[in-house]
Amino acid sequence: MAAVKVFCYAISTASIRVILCLEEVGAEYERVNIDMATGEHKSPAHVAKNPFGQVPAFQDGDLVLFESRAIGRYVLRKFKASDVDLLHGSSLEESAMVDVWLEVEAQQYDKAIFPIYYQAMIIPCFYGGTTDEKVVEENLVKLAKVLDVYEARLSQTKYLAGDFFSFADLSHYPVTHFSITIPQVAALFDARPHVKAWWESLESRPASKKVAAKIPQLS
Amino acid sequence: MAAVKVFCYAISTASIRVILCLEEVGAEYERVNIDMATGEHKSPAHVAKNPFGQVPAFQDGDLVLFESRAIGRYVLRKFKASDVDLLHGSSLEESAMVDVWLEVEAQQYDKAIFPIYYQAMIIPCFYGGTTDEKVVEENLVKLAKVLDVYEARLSQTKYLAGDFFSFADLSHYPVTHFSITIPQVAALFDARPHVKAWWESLESRPASKKVAAKIPQLS
Repeated sequence: MAAVKVFCYAISTASIRVILCLEEVGAEYERVNIDMATGEHKSPAHVAKNPFGQVPAFQDGDLVLFESRAIGRYVLRKFKASDVDLLHGSSLEESAMVDVWLEVEAQQYDKAIFPIYYQAMIIPCFYGGTTDEKVVEENLVKLAKVLDVYEARLSQTKYLAGDFFSFADLSHYPVTHFSITIPQVAALFDARPHVKAWWESLESRPASKKVAAKIPQLS
Repeated sequence: MAAVKVFCYAISTASIRVILCLEEVGAEYERVNIDMATGEHKSPAHVAKNPFGQVPAFQDGDLVLFESRAIGRYVLRKFKASDVDLLHGSSLEESAMVDVWLEVEAQQYDKAIFPIYYQAMIIPCFYGGTTDEKVVEENLVKLAKVLDVYEARLSQTKYLAGDFFSFADLSHYPVTHFSITIPQVAALFDARPHVKAWWESLESRPASKKVAAKIPQLS
């Protein structure tokens, strides 16, 4: 069976989400680098795979997918094993909680932390521009409120969807991997012991360590 | 069996998404109005159900869910029938395409159309404020690009995920129901025949008509 292909970029958080899913399930895969620095993500060849001209895209034989959370679901379903089912699809209630906290990641967490990451890291390190501190400050306030909800949740259950690691937790890894190096973000995590312990448990997973070793530093 | 409960607000697009799922599968449900005009969504009783103080929330016995797209998945799985499976969960490939286009709805479509809807309708009609025309203009440009991708897709398949109606299509209904009354948005649809035919097919579904009849007009 030919390995699946991920069309990705090394510092793209959405790309890292897909790679991490593949590592968690132990699937064979081929990375195909799409050089965003030269605009390759807008090339006709890539746009044929991802019509929005973004990374990642994904290919499994004739099936071509895009949008990292959708690709993640496919990977986790296709390669699931009796002891590795990060969607908990066999339980209506557990899979619902995975879906709830996956939506929270996309709709609440990412909407607060991504602008911080973008302003504090991508703009200066990737584009050589200047951080808009006002955007950072506004989103730190939003992120603090989101993390208050997480602290309450994680004082009741070990992981977000319940006492089991799931795609909902995994999906937080990529942007947090970068953002936790921003002192104001680290301070928000340090002030919330359950959030901090949760993040440390995500960071210490073998799949996370393997993926992190291949992510270039942004500085 | 006690009916499931939806804690919702009549003009909340996320609430309408859940109601529409319940109508499509023919489930019994109880609507519990959360009066956003008086701030009831921030009350302790509601925050206990939705920790972000938003609508909707959902209850099925002891199970309490929030985030409309996650609730929708639960409803569509719980009440699916041999002829009504809007997630196409029995096919790995079809469910992947539903997931892709659901993510597109959330990450591409909603991010462009929601700010237009909010500025052009919610701010003047709900808050009595003034529309920021610059935000409307910027997002009309974004929406046009998104709809170009949709036009290309819908010239190949009848619906977004394939030649079958799915949760991916349904999920577009609520914000579009309101926004299509904005002349500049209607013009973008009118200029794209496959998008327009797709929208007309969504609007004409019995479940959509039943739900639409109970949505107050914003004016």
